[in-house]
Amino acid sequence: MTTTLSMLETHPRRADVDRTRLAAAIDSLNACAETCTACADACLSEDAVAELTRCIALNLNCADICLATARMLSRHAGEDGAISRSMLEACATVCRACAEECARHAERQQHCRVCAEACRSCERVCRDLVVALR
Amino acid sequence: MTTTLSMLETHPRRADVDRTRLAAAIDSLNACAETCTACADACLSEDAVAELTRCIALNLNCADICLATARMLSRHAGEDGAISRSMLEACATVCRACAEECARHAERQQHCRVCAEACRSCERVCRDLVVALR
Amino acid sequence: MTTTLSMLETHPRRADVDRTRLAAAIDSLNACAETCTACADACLSEDAVAELTRCIALNLNCADICLATARMLSRHAGEDGAISRSMLEACATVCRACAEECARHAERQQHCRVCAEACRSCERVCRDLVVALR
Amino acid sequence: MTTTLSMLETHPRRADVDRTRLAAAIDSLNACAETCTACADACLSEDAVAELTRCIALNLNCADICLATARMLSRHAGEDGAISRSMLEACATVCRACAEECARHAERQQHCRVCAEACRSCERVCRDLVVALR
Repeated sequence: MTTTLSMLETHPRRADVDRTRLAAAIDSLNACAETCTACADACLSEDAVAELTRCIALNLNCADICLATARMLSRHAGEDGAISRSMLEACATVCRACAEECARHAERQQHCRVCAEACRSCERVCRDLVVALR
Repeated sequence: MTTTLSMLETHPRRADVDRTRLAAAIDSLNACAETCTACADACLSEDAVAELTRCIALNLNCADICLATARMLSRHAGEDGAISRSMLEACATVCRACAEECARHAERQQHCRVCAEACRSCERVCRDLVVALR
Repeated sequence: MTTTLSMLETHPRRADVDRTRLAAAIDSLNACAETCTACADACLSEDAVAELTRCIALNLNCADICLATARMLSRHAGEDGAISRSMLEACATVCRACAEECARHAERQQHCRVCAEACRSCERVCRDLVVALR
Repeated sequence: MTTTLSMLETHPRRADVDRTRLAAAIDSLNACAETCTACADACLSEDAVAELTRCIALNLNCADICLATARMLSRHAGEDGAISRSMLEACATVCRACAEECARHAERQQHCRVCAEACRSCERVCRDLVVALR
């Protein structure tokens, strides 16, 4: 059991969705944020950096948006379905764009391969949660 | 002229929208993020904190989302209309919810009055920019 | 193996410290940031919120500082020992203060008990890494 | 009068230092964070990006650390002199490193010239505030 699930289980309010599922979504968003931060820096350190600038900027946007989404999902005191759904949709949009860009470099840059998988998985998590929150 | 506009004017790429307008939007988002962070803490310091918990949580979400939006708008290297529009829509949604909640406390809490105005103005900026980016 | 370690292993630069250790530190910082964000919201949702306001503000500071530290440690392209050490010291300072405050509420608030442990463990990680980076 | 000062003036607690000075420090930190975010992206968009990678990584670290410091200074509910001083010292350290790196590129990259000034000014603000908080 991750700390994320422990925190949901000791929270005085019940979340709008199943706790195990919500904890998994938060963990996926935080892992994607960390992976994108690391991928931006790895791209920056490659000799081929000039070909990776769009990838770096998308990584930075994806990291910031995943993080803001994870924090929002961790806050139940101000829970609001409309905010959650619109942020999850924005997050799915940036995750898809980042996954596609990283996939273009995945053969030569191993970190982009790992990052593309993290973004694709996170996009799926966001889209599934939008449905569950309806 | 704020530093935000100087930075846009010295950036090697032209943004997708008028620079003065974009700089004003970024400044509005950053000001709203700071105001919401301060409002959350002021609410937390009030004797009536128990009535302000939803306001605090919305302030925290609004601060994080405005900030992620300002950062995204500051990055032109990975510019992508679909990401910009969906983040601006999520940001307008949280700004409206936060403005409405702060407005409910505006008579007794002066910081909520200032914050409601910042959120309302930021919501308008986000909605206008979505239209300009189409 | 977490994604954090995969990203360090596929990064073109070697970090200044052992990769497994660095990945564990980054994971600990991110987990502490998430736990503190969740603890702030859980405290905010308690009937006893008025007794927990200092705890909430420390949780919010600890979350932001742990996160900035994790991101800095994920960036090797601009690695600088003086910056790393001073941020790790600031991070250890806030982790200790947050752990102590959470511990005061740990008997009644289970989320504070979990959070105190996460902060204490993260403080240790930061102090050990300062030594390793010398 | 900026919104930052209005928020300090409507906050139920008095800060540990003069409000006008504290508001100016928060504004300087937020402006430096925004400038560094923009400078990282401008550097990324230059043909000479390969010579600017250390500058980009320092910009990203400086943006994150300035932001965490501004947020901490906006929170009086959990005010703690030891945390404030150690974060301000870490922030001054990264501002100096970023100012020095940006200054190396200031002749060819106008955005680095603007950013070097913002970082230098922010470093001074941090060092002055450490003294004022003693």
